[in-house]
Amino acid sequence: MSLLIVGSIALDTVRTPFGVVEDALGGAAVYASCAASFFTDVSVAGVAGRDFPSRHTDFLSSRGIDISGLEITEGQTFRWSGRYDFDLNQAHTLDTQLNVFADFRPDLGPAQRRASHVFLANMDPDIQLHILDQLEQPELVACDTMNFWIDGKPEALKRVISRSDILFINDAEARQLCNTSSLIKAARELHDTGLRAVVIKKGEHGSLMLCDEGFFAAPSYPLEEVRDPTGAGDSFAGGFMGYLVSEGDCGVDSLRCAVICGSVVASYNVEDFSLERMKQLDRNDIAARFNEFRHLSTFESPGALLSVSLE
Amino acid sequence: MSLLIVGSIALDTVRTPFGVVEDALGGAAVYASCAASFFTDVSVAGVAGRDFPSRHTDFLSSRGIDISGLEITEGQTFRWSGRYDFDLNQAHTLDTQLNVFADFRPDLGPAQRRASHVFLANMDPDIQLHILDQLEQPELVACDTMNFWIDGKPEALKRVISRSDILFINDAEARQLCNTSSLIKAARELHDTGLRAVVIKKGEHGSLMLCDEGFFAAPSYPLEEVRDPTGAGDSFAGGFMGYLVSEGDCGVDSLRCAVICGSVVASYNVEDFSLERMKQLDRNDIAARFNEFRHLSTFESPGALLSVSLE
Repeated sequence: MSLLIVGSIALDTVRTPFGVVEDALGGAAVYASCAASFFTDVSVAGVAGRDFPSRHTDFLSSRGIDISGLEITEGQTFRWSGRYDFDLNQAHTLDTQLNVFADFRPDLGPAQRRASHVFLANMDPDIQLHILDQLEQPELVACDTMNFWIDGKPEALKRVISRSDILFINDAEARQLCNTSSLIKAARELHDTGLRAVVIKKGEHGSLMLCDEGFFAAPSYPLEEVRDPTGAGDSFAGGFMGYLVSEGDCGVDSLRCAVICGSVVASYNVEDFSLERMKQLDRNDIAARFNEFRHLSTFESPGALLSVSLE
Repeated sequence: MSLLIVGSIALDTVRTPFGVVEDALGGAAVYASCAASFFTDVSVAGVAGRDFPSRHTDFLSSRGIDISGLEITEGQTFRWSGRYDFDLNQAHTLDTQLNVFADFRPDLGPAQRRASHVFLANMDPDIQLHILDQLEQPELVACDTMNFWIDGKPEALKRVISRSDILFINDAEARQLCNTSSLIKAARELHDTGLRAVVIKKGEHGSLMLCDEGFFAAPSYPLEEVRDPTGAGDSFAGGFMGYLVSEGDCGVDSLRCAVICGSVVASYNVEDFSLERMKQLDRNDIAARFNEFRHLSTFESPGALLSVSLE
């Protein structure tokens, strides 16, 4: 079993009420790969420019991530610049320079084409389709997207979703994609397209998954300070997929634990800028916070009054 | 053990995308009393005008609610008129006529003064203090409030909170009261004033409780259609308090189950206008949805990979 992750490799400049970083390691594929690497073997496909510092590729390798599919090409690395105000749920994009990512159209190597599990991070759905066309017999495909593609390429995006098993999407995007104010209706509509699971990310409000066995709601971890929300969704998806691959099935119990593992890694990730917090993590930290998530949402059987009715 | 609930008795005119009701039964004390009556004996204190239809008092009596503290006085009943658009989390008040509620300053009867458990629904904090002054030796006092009083009478409100054990408050109000964008910080700050539990209502995002034993997060029930959110917070508080009284303690297990019971009743309440849905409920319905809430948020132990780290 192996997990292939395809998506952006970026250098981010981010300002939040807690500080600033310039040209820091980022990108959906980077966050997701690092998050997944706590659980399983990961191979990444992406593109960076000649300006991409070798310490970043060294870091990814140090996490055991196979970076043979990370192409370093002539030109500048994709750059994103954004600001978060006190409402840390909302990113304000200041500048996007696609640079070498504008021409990203990967040709997967033989091993990557045979990947059993694939996560297509947010990118042009035509490129997602191009990647899907190269996969030989994937057991499980997950994808992510964003409002830009829902607006701009809805038909291509629908084809991507129809060829995926799991969709990661945030709450505003789910409402937009299904043209409804009801998140529950949106989840059902998306699940009805044949997805094994729809996973809706709600930022500080946790997440909501709909799979064949019904809804599952996970809270967010109660953090007093979110220093930098960048990469929260990608580290969630990476943790989710990494756990699922390590389990080797996508039964409802594994899917639910995967949501929690995604939540755990994402909650650590937002404690510091860029991937700084993930660099300090080990599996014991993840296991410890997994237990805290259980404590956060567990309740006992009700007292006699309701229990009688339950008999 | 008995639960005294004090607050508004209203006739509401409400428009939502799903319909309209005019002069329908409403008011915080009405919603809360009805919700609590599924769990325990309730006594209500409030005021209505001569126009208050006797079928409403008959209904409250039929739920076993002691309405001897419900004063019917010369004048018109408190009227609230509001509209909800597709974002059903946000009420738009069109008109408020306090009428007889403007002079509400209840003198509790002897039995009510001896109530063991008290819920002071949202109202002028000076009136909440007036009620607190009459209580002989309450075991547990809970209160609710709203942005209007946080703005207008912050000092009186702080005195109410300092004399309470449990505070119900919605997320925007908690941020406003503590002047912070972080809900977690707000919860900690409020809990640090000496409250046994701070219960933050987040509408479609569920609720978050902080008590001495830490945070507890409960999801909302995944409803495709919320027909009328009016009274959701009050029925939540009523269900919560009713369960707590029926349990006879406020240990952490009871508090957590109380959050779920509040969520259950509130989730039923919003399925129809006014109290129509609560009128059809019985304890079996409540027990059944309690179980659904468990299914909604339960997850198994993680697989071998993380379990090893947990050993």
